[in-house]
Amino acid sequence: MYKLIELKSGVCSAKGFFADGISAGLKPNSAKDMAFIYSEEICEIASVFTTNKMTAAPIRHFRKKGAFKTNFVLINAKNANAMTGKAGIEDIDTILSTLPKELINPVMSSTGVIGVRLPKEKIIAGTKLFNLTKKEPNAAANAIMTTDSFSKQKAFRVELEDGSSFSIGAMAKGAGMINPAMATMLCFITTDAKVSKDEMQTILDEVTLTTFNAASVDGDTSTNDTVMLLSNGLSGTYNKEAFKEALQKIMLFLAREMVRDGEGATKLVTYKVTGAKSDEEAEVVAKALSNSLLVKTALYGEDPNWGRIASTVGASGVECSEETLSISFNELCVYDKGNLLFDEDMEEKASKIMKLDSFSIACDLGVGEGKFTSFGCDLGYEYVKINADYRT
Amino acid sequence: MYKLIELKSGVCSAKGFFADGISAGLKPNSAKDMAFIYSEEICEIASVFTTNKMTAAPIRHFRKKGAFKTNFVLINAKNANAMTGKAGIEDIDTILSTLPKELINPVMSSTGVIGVRLPKEKIIAGTKLFNLTKKEPNAAANAIMTTDSFSKQKAFRVELEDGSSFSIGAMAKGAGMINPAMATMLCFITTDAKVSKDEMQTILDEVTLTTFNAASVDGDTSTNDTVMLLSNGLSGTYNKEAFKEALQKIMLFLAREMVRDGEGATKLVTYKVTGAKSDEEAEVVAKALSNSLLVKTALYGEDPNWGRIASTVGASGVECSEETLSISFNELCVYDKGNLLFDEDMEEKASKIMKLDSFSIACDLGVGEGKFTSFGCDLGYEYVKINADYRT
Repeated sequence: MYKLIELKSGVCSAKGFFADGISAGLKPNSAKDMAFIYSEEICEIASVFTTNKMTAAPIRHFRKKGAFKTNFVLINAKNANAMTGKAGIEDIDTILSTLPKELINPVMSSTGVIGVRLPKEKIIAGTKLFNLTKKEPNAAANAIMTTDSFSKQKAFRVELEDGSSFSIGAMAKGAGMINPAMATMLCFITTDAKVSKDEMQTILDEVTLTTFNAASVDGDTSTNDTVMLLSNGLSGTYNKEAFKEALQKIMLFLAREMVRDGEGATKLVTYKVTGAKSDEEAEVVAKALSNSLLVKTALYGEDPNWGRIASTVGASGVECSEETLSISFNELCVYDKGNLLFDEDMEEKASKIMKLDSFSIACDLGVGEGKFTSFGCDLGYEYVKINADYRT
Repeated sequence: MYKLIELKSGVCSAKGFFADGISAGLKPNSAKDMAFIYSEEICEIASVFTTNKMTAAPIRHFRKKGAFKTNFVLINAKNANAMTGKAGIEDIDTILSTLPKELINPVMSSTGVIGVRLPKEKIIAGTKLFNLTKKEPNAAANAIMTTDSFSKQKAFRVELEDGSSFSIGAMAKGAGMINPAMATMLCFITTDAKVSKDEMQTILDEVTLTTFNAASVDGDTSTNDTVMLLSNGLSGTYNKEAFKEALQKIMLFLAREMVRDGEGATKLVTYKVTGAKSDEEAEVVAKALSNSLLVKTALYGEDPNWGRIASTVGASGVECSEETLSISFNELCVYDKGNLLFDEDMEEKASKIMKLDSFSIACDLGVGEGKFTSFGCDLGYEYVKINADYRT
């Protein structure tokens, strides 16, 4: 047995971790735009990166180093250092070479506009403002935001039966370009659990599938997506089951928060697909629903247009038929295996559900045991506004 | 040698074809909402239907009959007769049984809202208003529109070297739910060419791939998509090459018109993908570009954000790299194999191109000989408005 106790200290929750955010003049109005995470002990690293082939320079730089440990991560907003070729890698080398020698194998992570060289001088000047003794998780979480409207953090202390405890804390940024196969998202997770690199990676991979990889804002996959988990082992203790549960809770919360804060989003919808021929087919349907423009605009219009749900299921290419499909909004079944249940009374009930900030749409395909749950949001005028004019 | 002469008479261009549109009270304000096509000679039929598994009743009804010939097609707007199960099929039988006996194997086609039974009485009453001697192609093309803002027709007379000639004419409707794998689109094509059913089907399949199946508005595939080609052979003549060219020109024009009239669209963009490992991979990229929300909103914002183009290419999963990719807006190369060409001067030139109603975005992946061209539009506030509140 173990207990999870929620903490409010984000990436500074685990022993020996420090973080802060500062303004380097990358964002206007002196907003915070650079953050660091520092650990007083060197850390094992587990990571998941974008599947985009146009992998941004920071990810290529990370991978080039092979296996390594670090005690420092530097993050900048406003510039993704993507599509910048060898020069992008060299820019990172130049920046990192100016850091103090006690920072071992420092890692850089970037988010922002694609196809523009990093403003090296500003970033180097920014690093001079870092104070490694600071524990300012909120400032760090704010600094990494781009189009996010609020910062995203979650942390737990895990108390084990033998009286020992360890902590896990995280910060993340969204908020557009979020796709089932990762997203323009950065997530940094710190822990003092004494966990091996291999085990940490295995658990991270597994948890990613049902959390960040089940979240969709707009179906696009960015060049910079990164989830990084750092462990310094300072708690001296560990329990696999508890660690995995805490990580799952943290990543699920952050994934849902990213979707809830999806660009212009007003609703968070959970798509529960069951009865598919396989889990893989359920995943195809769940992601088709969370990515469908017609479904997303119907959500925005608070229109219980279950026909679009059915059409999207049918268009996804998996095994299904109108005779075995059923569709529910929360607990309200609106279509049941060929029976048109929808009348004025039901429309009124369904419309009420559609007005909620958060609800579920369940589709049972009725052809097997496969299931998958994804998260999506609506798409409104604000999404268009944000993305029609992102660079300016 | 042969000549194509454009005609303005749509589906009534070919000898022996009649068509009209009437109001049956399905649309508000007495707008035309039902159309027919009638041929004085019985026709061979070639067809392409949606790949959506939730196939609408009219398509299931058509398929159930096996091979057949007809002289009559009845089309209604406002109700798709989809997700209506066996009752949907029975409704069609009921409606068609009331038609005059000289109409042989009549075909029904529907577009509109999903999941609502057909208003049989109104439709049957509507058929009583049909006058089979009318040649009103514009009225027919208007009647089948849903969210279309203009009707779509194209026709040619094909004059052969021996002095004989045949005609092909078409009408189509879009305008949302348009996806590379078909669309909520109906297209009816009539011809008096003396062509065999098999040859007509082969040509139709082939031409569909590079026309309707290369067009995207929102990446959704409807339950009702239909392309139907009717030939009555009354011209007594035929030439395969000329027939195919005329059909290609007609379907390409209509596909582009559908995208141009995409819900809320203000721009028609042609994505020319070359240098892919295979034609299939080029197709994946071209369709990813025409479906990307981030690309579509950048187009709406007239923002020459080539980074999103690159990111979308990379996210599509095909073989590519930033060292071999190049990107052009019309003839202006904005990114060339790792070289960041974009400066203020180029941004100004690129912005001018983005303001055009119609332009091309070319991506050469630089890894092979594969190529494919797709068509897409931008996504603006109007798309959201139309789709957030479609049913009301």
